[in-house]
Amino acid sequence: MTRSNDPEHVAIDVTSKMGIVDEATCVRLLESTPIGRIGFSADGEVLVLPVNFKWHEDSIVFRTLEGQKLAAAAENQHVCFEVDQWDAATRTGWSVVVQGVAREVTNWAEDAHLDQIGLVPWAKAEWRPIWVRIEPTTISGRVLR
Amino acid sequence: MTRSNDPEHVAIDVTSKMGIVDEATCVRLLESTPIGRIGFSADGEVLVLPVNFKWHEDSIVFRTLEGQKLAAAAENQHVCFEVDQWDAATRTGWSVVVQGVAREVTNWAEDAHLDQIGLVPWAKAEWRPIWVRIEPTTISGRVLR
Repeated sequence: MTRSNDPEHVAIDVTSKMGIVDEATCVRLLESTPIGRIGFSADGEVLVLPVNFKWHEDSIVFRTLEGQKLAAAAENQHVCFEVDQWDAATRTGWSVVVQGVAREVTNWAEDAHLDQIGLVPWAKAEWRPIWVRIEPTTISGRVLR
Repeated sequence: MTRSNDPEHVAIDVTSKMGIVDEATCVRLLESTPIGRIGFSADGEVLVLPVNFKWHEDSIVFRTLEGQKLAAAAENQHVCFEVDQWDAATRTGWSVVVQGVAREVTNWAEDAHLDQIGLVPWAKAEWRPIWVRIEPTTISGRVLR
C-alpha cells in the first residue's frame, strides 16, 4: 500500500539537516510538481483548494474562472501555497510552503506571455481565462515527519 | 513522468456527475489517505501545512507538538482540511475538502482512546503529545480539473 514516486522527484535530493530543505531545492521541487494547494480567506473562512500550476519567473501562476471561489484569492491577498510528495510505505516525504501575495494578471502583455508558457489546464470542460500570480515572500521546505 | 496510484485508492470509484464526488465516497477517500493539509489562520496569515492524520469517528484527528504553529489551529478555530490524489500522465485526480472546527483533545479518556487507534506518527525524532480533532461541518469532493 504505497504511492510510487515520480522519477523526476526521486532525482531531487531532499536530504537535509534538521528536516529543513534549502531554498534552491524548494524551487526545484516547485518546478517539478504540477499540482499544489492554495490556502486563502474567502468570506472570513479559510479555504484550501488544489490547482494545476507552474513555477514561472520566480512566482506561482495558475488559471481560474471568474466567479469561482478561487478568484477571491486573486485580490492582492496574502495566501499560502503548498506542494508535497510522500510515500506511505517508507513513511517519508517532503513539503514546500510558499507564502506570498496573489493578484490577478490584468496586463495584456503579461497575460499573452503566460498563455505561451505551456500550462495546459487539466479542465476538459471549461476555459479558464484568468491568470493568477503569487509573488512569494517566503519559501520554506521540510522533510515530512 | 507520473505518479502511480495507490492500489487502495484505485479501488475507489470517483466517477461523478458534473465533477462532484458524493459524501460517502469522500469519506472512503479520507479513510484511505494518510496525509492531508490543514489550512488555518495564524497571526492573521493563512498557513497550509501537511499532517499525518486519521479519519476516526466521523472526524479528522492528528497529533502535534505544543508551541508549533500547528497548535494554533487547535484553538476552536474554523479550519479547512484537504486531501487529494492525482496522476500527471492521465491528467486526472480528485480532491476532498473538509471544513470544520479544530480543537485540542483535553479529555483524558478521549486522549487515551486516540492513543490506541493506530495513528503512528511519521516523526522519528520527537514525540507529539497533543491530539487535535477537526469536527466537520461540510465535506465536499471534486474531480480535479
